[in-house]
Amino acid sequence: MAKIKGIILLILETLGAALILFYLRKALISSENHEVSVILPMLIDIAFLAFFASFGGRLAKIIHIAPMAGKIIMGIIAGPAVLGVIAPYSEGVELSRLAGVLFILFEAGLHFDMELLKKNWLVATIIAHVGVIIPLISIGLLGHYAFGMAWMPAIFLGGVFTATSVGLSVEALKRAGKLETDMGNKIIGAAVIDDILGVLVLTILAKLSSEGHLEAMGIVWIIVAVVAFFGGAYILWNMGIAQSIAKYLDTHYVDSSTGPHTRFFFGALMMAGALAAVIGLEPVLGAFGIGVVLSKVDNEIKHSTWEKIEGHMHIFVGGFLVSIGTMLPREALLSAKAWLLAIILTIIGFVGKYLTRYLVKDKVEGHLVGLAMSIRGEVGLVFVAVALANHVLDDVTAAAALLGVIIVTVIGAIWFEKAVMKQTGVKMSEAGEAI
Amino acid sequence: MAKIKGIILLILETLGAALILFYLRKALISSENHEVSVILPMLIDIAFLAFFASFGGRLAKIIHIAPMAGKIIMGIIAGPAVLGVIAPYSEGVELSRLAGVLFILFEAGLHFDMELLKKNWLVATIIAHVGVIIPLISIGLLGHYAFGMAWMPAIFLGGVFTATSVGLSVEALKRAGKLETDMGNKIIGAAVIDDILGVLVLTILAKLSSEGHLEAMGIVWIIVAVVAFFGGAYILWNMGIAQSIAKYLDTHYVDSSTGPHTRFFFGALMMAGALAAVIGLEPVLGAFGIGVVLSKVDNEIKHSTWEKIEGHMHIFVGGFLVSIGTMLPREALLSAKAWLLAIILTIIGFVGKYLTRYLVKDKVEGHLVGLAMSIRGEVGLVFVAVALANHVLDDVTAAAALLGVIIVTVIGAIWFEKAVMKQTGVKMSEAGEAI
Repeated sequence: MAKIKGIILLILETLGAALILFYLRKALISSENHEVSVILPMLIDIAFLAFFASFGGRLAKIIHIAPMAGKIIMGIIAGPAVLGVIAPYSEGVELSRLAGVLFILFEAGLHFDMELLKKNWLVATIIAHVGVIIPLISIGLLGHYAFGMAWMPAIFLGGVFTATSVGLSVEALKRAGKLETDMGNKIIGAAVIDDILGVLVLTILAKLSSEGHLEAMGIVWIIVAVVAFFGGAYILWNMGIAQSIAKYLDTHYVDSSTGPHTRFFFGALMMAGALAAVIGLEPVLGAFGIGVVLSKVDNEIKHSTWEKIEGHMHIFVGGFLVSIGTMLPREALLSAKAWLLAIILTIIGFVGKYLTRYLVKDKVEGHLVGLAMSIRGEVGLVFVAVALANHVLDDVTAAAALLGVIIVTVIGAIWFEKAVMKQTGVKMSEAGEAI
Repeated sequence: MAKIKGIILLILETLGAALILFYLRKALISSENHEVSVILPMLIDIAFLAFFASFGGRLAKIIHIAPMAGKIIMGIIAGPAVLGVIAPYSEGVELSRLAGVLFILFEAGLHFDMELLKKNWLVATIIAHVGVIIPLISIGLLGHYAFGMAWMPAIFLGGVFTATSVGLSVEALKRAGKLETDMGNKIIGAAVIDDILGVLVLTILAKLSSEGHLEAMGIVWIIVAVVAFFGGAYILWNMGIAQSIAKYLDTHYVDSSTGPHTRFFFGALMMAGALAAVIGLEPVLGAFGIGVVLSKVDNEIKHSTWEKIEGHMHIFVGGFLVSIGTMLPREALLSAKAWLLAIILTIIGFVGKYLTRYLVKDKVEGHLVGLAMSIRGEVGLVFVAVALANHVLDDVTAAAALLGVIIVTVIGAIWFEKAVMKQTGVKMSEAGEAI
């Protein structure tokens, strides 16, 4: 009874919020005042993504699934697939999505143990390469020979499933309390490396599909950029530059407020994300790198500043998860062909990554690594977006790819969390929300 | 020596940040990826506004002026008037400005003592009306008879100086530790009321200048909206609805994280701002109203949630102050005519508000009230924007009006803080930054 009452209340709250959002947004954008018609709707979108994230957390609690999955599902409900009150490509939603994933990677970097990586780098590199190559080749072959697609769209489809979502995996690890373990280190290391590989594959495919040929310099440049970026981050980390800056701020800027430290952390994050984008990498890699660099800041300053940064995490991380769900179009939910294709892609996409479990000696740990690596996300969605922009994939195939990414992510997240619970004996409801 | 070294370091840091911002922004917007070329620059603008706010705080510390004034001056330096690396109307800057002023008013509402207002409402109402009528009439008459302007632009010019900036006044009060005093209550009460009067005047002038006539319904509607909005806020406050919602969240949403509370506060703020805008009021009034309503939330929840909301304050409030400075165009800095007009407007604008001191019995308190009320800001800037859009003011006059608003604000803030220091014996450097 309590459960049914909870579900009814949740449905009423969700519908109520959706109605308010719908009418408020409509009234705002009809204003003649630029601030009211353009800027305020962005803040409203950010706010309601956050509300839906809260609803998603409650949904997860009621039906006993991972909160992350609950939030993505709530995004599917709020987005064009069902209620249609949140537009996945409005500026406020895009801002929330980008800021959210940057904050997730920032936290992952702050907690990343570089010393541990020195031990794990080989296995992480192998896991990353295997996890990229298997889905790319198997889906590419299947698309070409079984579905009769041309090579380019078939390989693009494979590309969608190459990259583990380092953002979502970190979120799952954090919730499970495994972020700073040896296993967490391997998973994050592998996820970061396969993100880089994914970007490499995407760059090659994008150039090939839009220009019809490939410049060797493009690939060389990405490799140089990766080496320079992570080399630079390693050097800054090793020098402990972050601690020097924090000390400098303490001497010259800080009075009674931690404001200058908050602004330093926030600004450094955005700057690193932008720098990564400028040299052709994904912004998330920059966020991860600067997190590692700033992890050297004094624990006391780090802790008090993190209290403030969490205010942004509370708004934007949930917003990111919900906004991923909103990217599923209604056509995908209604098309039988898209579902069939999506299920096939989900299975291959899942198995292709899960096989990485055999690269880890310990069986239980291998199982968890395989599940965590199967979670996809933003890079896969970027593949779909580029494919659509270059007219490589048709609408149904693109919808199927999106659906596949979301299904494999929701299932991967649920299974990963269940496996962790089984291993540690901690119940989901006790673990609580990470954010 | 230490002072000169400090100034040189600050100049180098400011120029360094400006250079990085310039090249980073340029590289980002040339990208073909929408997320990189549109969304990331918004985050970068928000981040660098925050950096410049830190620099402004340090500038204020070195040359012993109010931090608020230091941040506005740093905005003038970063904006088109000097370095030109921050565009005052880019979306990230507008977002920061709006979010910042909403958070300032939200905090003012949270700390506002409704019981005290019951005692002070009459004097606050009188201060507000006198402070609106004197500048409006005196500048209007001066513009028409002394400068030979037509009535409409002359009255518009007067309108620019009608409304005290409740955002900036609150910030000054907070820094001085006077936010929750009897005097602070009078000032905020008067500032909120004259904001409403300012909106009323603006609505009338905007309709008259764009349509050539005035519908009585427009004015009636605003009065109805004001009564309904503040009546509603009072009823919600009286019912203690906020505490019921917080309790409900605790039961059904919150696990180990304060996330749902942060999202509730943040979302309620944006929703109230939007609601105010939809019924034709300024969004800041909505932010103030919801702050009053939420002040009834349990102190423990309020405190832990505020820790997180402060993360947003640290970024956006400084961003708001800097962005006000960026609104000054270079022409205004270089035109002798604009300076002359601005100085005249500043004097009349200042005296016109300062006269409200004689409405307060206590002499020292009256002096402080007069100074605090002389601070203008966002509503004045809205007047200028509407006047430009409706071609009522020419460029030089508009620039002079902007310059006047900024000068009167910087001087008012400095004098107010000096007067508070003198009264309480607290040194500025000990008072520290409010944010």
